[in-house]
Amino acid sequence: MKRIVIVGGVAGGASAATRARRLDERARIVLFERGPDVSFANCGLPYYVGGVIAPRDKLLVSTAAKLRARFAIDVRTRCEVTAIDRARKVVRFRAADGAEGEEAYDVLILSPGAAPLRPPLPGIDHAGVMVLRSLQDVDRIRGAVDAGARRAVVVGAGFIGLELVENLVHRGVSTTLVELQDQILPPFDREVTTPLVTAVREAGVEVLLGESAEAFEPDGAGIAVRLASGRRLPADLVILGIGVRPENALAVAAGLETGPRGGIRVDAAMRTSDPAILACGDCVETRDAITGGPAQVPLAGPANRQGRIAADTACARPAAYRGTQGTAIVGAFGRTMAMTGASEKALLRAGTPFARAWVHPAHHASYYPGAEPMSLKLLFSPQGGRLLGAQAVGGPGVDKRIDVIAVAIQAGMTAFDLEQVELCYAPQYGSAKDPVNMAGFVAAGLLRGDHPQVDVGAIATPATPAPFLLDVRTPQEHALGSIPGSVNLPIDDLRDRLDELPRGRSIVTYCQVGMRGYLATRILLQSGFPQTANLGGGYATWRLHHPAP
Amino acid sequence: MKRIVIVGGVAGGASAATRARRLDERARIVLFERGPDVSFANCGLPYYVGGVIAPRDKLLVSTAAKLRARFAIDVRTRCEVTAIDRARKVVRFRAADGAEGEEAYDVLILSPGAAPLRPPLPGIDHAGVMVLRSLQDVDRIRGAVDAGARRAVVVGAGFIGLELVENLVHRGVSTTLVELQDQILPPFDREVTTPLVTAVREAGVEVLLGESAEAFEPDGAGIAVRLASGRRLPADLVILGIGVRPENALAVAAGLETGPRGGIRVDAAMRTSDPAILACGDCVETRDAITGGPAQVPLAGPANRQGRIAADTACARPAAYRGTQGTAIVGAFGRTMAMTGASEKALLRAGTPFARAWVHPAHHASYYPGAEPMSLKLLFSPQGGRLLGAQAVGGPGVDKRIDVIAVAIQAGMTAFDLEQVELCYAPQYGSAKDPVNMAGFVAAGLLRGDHPQVDVGAIATPATPAPFLLDVRTPQEHALGSIPGSVNLPIDDLRDRLDELPRGRSIVTYCQVGMRGYLATRILLQSGFPQTANLGGGYATWRLHHPAP
Repeated sequence: MKRIVIVGGVAGGASAATRARRLDERARIVLFERGPDVSFANCGLPYYVGGVIAPRDKLLVSTAAKLRARFAIDVRTRCEVTAIDRARKVVRFRAADGAEGEEAYDVLILSPGAAPLRPPLPGIDHAGVMVLRSLQDVDRIRGAVDAGARRAVVVGAGFIGLELVENLVHRGVSTTLVELQDQILPPFDREVTTPLVTAVREAGVEVLLGESAEAFEPDGAGIAVRLASGRRLPADLVILGIGVRPENALAVAAGLETGPRGGIRVDAAMRTSDPAILACGDCVETRDAITGGPAQVPLAGPANRQGRIAADTACARPAAYRGTQGTAIVGAFGRTMAMTGASEKALLRAGTPFARAWVHPAHHASYYPGAEPMSLKLLFSPQGGRLLGAQAVGGPGVDKRIDVIAVAIQAGMTAFDLEQVELCYAPQYGSAKDPVNMAGFVAAGLLRGDHPQVDVGAIATPATPAPFLLDVRTPQEHALGSIPGSVNLPIDDLRDRLDELPRGRSIVTYCQVGMRGYLATRILLQSGFPQTANLGGGYATWRLHHPAP
Repeated sequence: MKRIVIVGGVAGGASAATRARRLDERARIVLFERGPDVSFANCGLPYYVGGVIAPRDKLLVSTAAKLRARFAIDVRTRCEVTAIDRARKVVRFRAADGAEGEEAYDVLILSPGAAPLRPPLPGIDHAGVMVLRSLQDVDRIRGAVDAGARRAVVVGAGFIGLELVENLVHRGVSTTLVELQDQILPPFDREVTTPLVTAVREAGVEVLLGESAEAFEPDGAGIAVRLASGRRLPADLVILGIGVRPENALAVAAGLETGPRGGIRVDAAMRTSDPAILACGDCVETRDAITGGPAQVPLAGPANRQGRIAADTACARPAAYRGTQGTAIVGAFGRTMAMTGASEKALLRAGTPFARAWVHPAHHASYYPGAEPMSLKLLFSPQGGRLLGAQAVGGPGVDKRIDVIAVAIQAGMTAFDLEQVELCYAPQYGSAKDPVNMAGFVAAGLLRGDHPQVDVGAIATPATPAPFLLDVRTPQEHALGSIPGSVNLPIDDLRDRLDELPRGRSIVTYCQVGMRGYLATRILLQSGFPQTANLGGGYATWRLHHPAP
């Protein structure tokens, strides 16, 4: 009889426990969970604050009782594993009543998760400074709001921070969002975040970028956040969402290998440096599926799949995790942002060459009512076109396109493949040329050399000599807003007015989203203007980089 | 200067014309269109009948004037090409005013589309018997409705037929749907259509399956449809949506090769049997991407991509169409149905072995409000797990899952790959274990032999001896409806009540959607009941096969 001991009973641990039981009806499976709850809906917690999810027991995906009855798992909640004795293959635990004991294992699976960062700032221990990880945390935050909190400060504009801001606003709490970086949602490239940060501000939230909390001070019945800029934000409630660190204390004390950011190192079978000990979920350092480098990405989907793979390995079945791709999504204030694969920032850090394709299509046929625009950036290898990443922002249908590209990336597809994918089309759902096809057309055109392109960054930099900037939109569109210094010559007149363009000078064409600019580039390249390039994604992309103040 | 002549100016022809211009600014491009309009939104026509799309000019995706001004294309509307002289490389045409002429080509691209079938039944030429292909057709139908038509008969329950039914109901027209086959939407497998046919009937539409029109007879100011059963349906308006036939007359007269169903045969570069003549769109017979056999599938997405490829070939660029996968979607009466790849019917016809995995998940995290169920059937190779097809029915999120699987099929992925795909997850958008992952888990479990499964068909057939049918749901669920002859023993009690089960007899477990049944199968297989199998997709799948009358 195999003895499987699991530390941590939420996403990874619960997945590992139930799969291990399905694989081995005879195994003794003991699941230790330090807290009172197993398998709760972490990702739903912000929505419970907002009252969107109610009642509270909706957050209990499973329960200890169910894991016992249905899966014959020996669940020990409020029971903390305090040490691992690798030589004897036992863990030491302490129960809520203080009783201690030992449990022997053949395979140990560590899935303790990751803890919200609480940096050692003055006042950090004030009861009004909260984090969001457990049901107890959410009860505290929700309790404060229910008790009449009127002003909140959320520190950290990551996924959880933004979801909290939306739910606080939904409850009528006046909220300020403070973020150290110069953008919200740091995993995304900055310009992609423009529509969402605009929406957050339009909802009445003050968003302070490039700003950080330095101290927390009592302020009457509340608490004030002192910022690095010297500003002081009085509040009833402060929530930190500035990141997490892997819960690696047990692993470190047992001498298991960890990465520079603290993640427990595992191989593809989820084995730690001790082959009798596996690990999964937010506590591990795994492999980045794109760059091949180390990845420490706390996401629910990967945690669940890693838990399954750990169970396979525990039951001596071959299984391999393919690395984390970083597919992620957030919805707030009527906008959706999603990404998969590497960002530009990550590719620059990794030294991976890349090219970009921008499209700004409607989410379904524009002739059908309700079409909403989205902006989609595709990153791919300039040699061969391998897909490296994608990011999108918009409304409905953003999740679909990023999911489609996520699979294409996992399959090792190229931009040329995206030209050919055959997706659902009826006017309520998509377009005959889907946004994914469109991104493929643009990227493949670049790769084939049909379509020289410059990026917004290139025209923003003073070049010598500056290119002739040609707006091929209509005079009406030009009048509504254009790139400074550009000359308007509508596409439909272009062939007849070529003599108005400068010979021997580089020309950058642009339109609203890149399509007419592409045609203009093709016309000019074939009409004696060999130094012509199109502005990728057109004025819409330029606006993402240069939002209205 | 290359001379490119194109016959037909809608999806394929317009795509070919504009891409050819982008590729070759110097080419002479002549586009003949028999009708008055180019590039209109075929797929939007039913919604114009319903008034969902308004005004009418929304249906004009492009216009002859725009193709002339922007793309320098010589567009000749109301101008019919009457013959091809392959030896001299000229086409003969006749304009609306009767004037005839010739136009020489280096490359000819045929994209005349497909015409609605009008079988030679008595009365078929009655003005009240309409079809829907062009703007003129939709004007006639819409005109009849605007003029007060109260009763309509739609013959043919394909995509267009169903969309018409929905839009007629939306306009308050009492509608009867007549379909020759024993199901709506014949490209789908029958059981997948159950929820939609139920919804259509619940909307007050009489749906007559296995029924056909035999004649059309004047009936007062209206028209009556006489059915094969002898029934007579009086109506103000009859619309035929029973399929299309390729417009191949020009090609046949010119001696080009066509397939048994009339499609113009093309290779991957869209070349017909005459390499100077290309063809694309609804008129061609191409390759089925799954079975490799011939495919004649009139869909807008493939038509558009084929048009691009024809332009590439016309401009001497290498390009290859990968075959048609049959990705299709229809939304009506609050339901969405979508499919990609081969159906069971198609696989049976092709003699391709397949296995099935059924899942019935919520479209996003069930703890987040608004989760709607979907049913998803995955078809895959029993050897190696190559994905062959998928069909889904439900509400939101059906399109996303079929698109994801469409790409996976194109990439040549297997069921094992679907276990690992990393998709977007936040509670409004999906689940940590997405429906696509779930389908992968089920299919991969079958392939690994973990999870013997029987299909509904197997238990419906009298077997000798009949299996012991074990419902492992709760007594409450069992009481609400169960498979006749099944015994209820809830999963959570199973381990303690094994002695109630028959030894040495085959046992089929089932639950609501297949998950508890899977666990029950695992328990029994490992507890001395080696002849146990799970009913794939559980009671939910059984209900699709056995809808309430």
